[in-house]
Amino acid sequence: MDELKLRILTQGSNLGGGILKVDGFINHQVDPRLMDRCGQELARRFGHVGATKVLTAEISGIAPALMTAMYLNLPVVYARKSKPVTMPNQIFLTLAPSHTKGRTVELIVSPEFLGADERVLIIDDFLASGQTIMGLVRLAQAAGAAVVGIGTLIEKRFETGRQLLTPLDIPIEALAVVTDMSEGRIVFAD
Amino acid sequence: MDELKLRILTQGSNLGGGILKVDGFINHQVDPRLMDRCGQELARRFGHVGATKVLTAEISGIAPALMTAMYLNLPVVYARKSKPVTMPNQIFLTLAPSHTKGRTVELIVSPEFLGADERVLIIDDFLASGQTIMGLVRLAQAAGAAVVGIGTLIEKRFETGRQLLTPLDIPIEALAVVTDMSEGRIVFAD
Repeated sequence: MDELKLRILTQGSNLGGGILKVDGFINHQVDPRLMDRCGQELARRFGHVGATKVLTAEISGIAPALMTAMYLNLPVVYARKSKPVTMPNQIFLTLAPSHTKGRTVELIVSPEFLGADERVLIIDDFLASGQTIMGLVRLAQAAGAAVVGIGTLIEKRFETGRQLLTPLDIPIEALAVVTDMSEGRIVFAD
Repeated sequence: MDELKLRILTQGSNLGGGILKVDGFINHQVDPRLMDRCGQELARRFGHVGATKVLTAEISGIAPALMTAMYLNLPVVYARKSKPVTMPNQIFLTLAPSHTKGRTVELIVSPEFLGADERVLIIDDFLASGQTIMGLVRLAQAAGAAVVGIGTLIEKRFETGRQLLTPLDIPIEALAVVTDMSEGRIVFAD
């Protein structure tokens, strides 16, 4: 998606060590209209998979997941990283190592909102190590639900996420695929 | 806003102790089209205040803030509760006691995205104790910015948030004002 790539090139920063800073329009400050167009494009790409629910992880996944879900006219569930008082005691929980946080985080979903009959579309901001998305896949599997698609705004293809997820045989879409961030570069796949 | 009140009555739960569970359409599972209409209504109510930026707090404020910001054509900044690696070392930080979490949380904003010339519209899901919103006000003040409005989806007027914020002399809007949750009731202001 050219608009997103252009924003990454003009307003993103390569901080080194594979860290792509997009705090000005995705991760801290968010451009709602960009998110709207990204959601529309992800909804277009996954319109055929018959999803019944969008699943994401707090925090940065919420904006793109919300916009994608709006265009697909589906509810979106965001996995919590801590259990709120309003959640029942019986929950789906998995652990996902977070590279950027340098620790393992919990991903929690209430069985109230993820049932065995669901067809789940996972949306997140980044596909990098793939650990968060794999955690969301495990949550869906724990619920007995089918994962029918995985969509992200940005994929860092020089990391191992794509290899981790490919054996699942689930369609994967990324709106901007970064293949190289060595020596200060930000190189896209096409 | 009648649609939101109806959803609270039909799909919300009074868990006792003043806790209103809206996990099915706001806080864990989110209804994007409801959020869209709530954002549109908040944007209408604050269209005249000349805001240049929407400010919210992760996590549950993100969806309503994003939709409000989309209709106002403004960027939205969400205060982080932990500092990501992409944020500079010099930050705005305040502490806010969280009633629902039972502990004090940090609210962090990067000076990159909150400047002294900003006119800030604060949007959150709940106005209850008012502590999170007061924390956001302090962050804006630390940046030298003006707070020009405070909007929430739901206000629990039987808590002390409204009294805490009223002396600031900033317009406050809530789309559903709950005045009484005693004995299992959910009573709205009008």
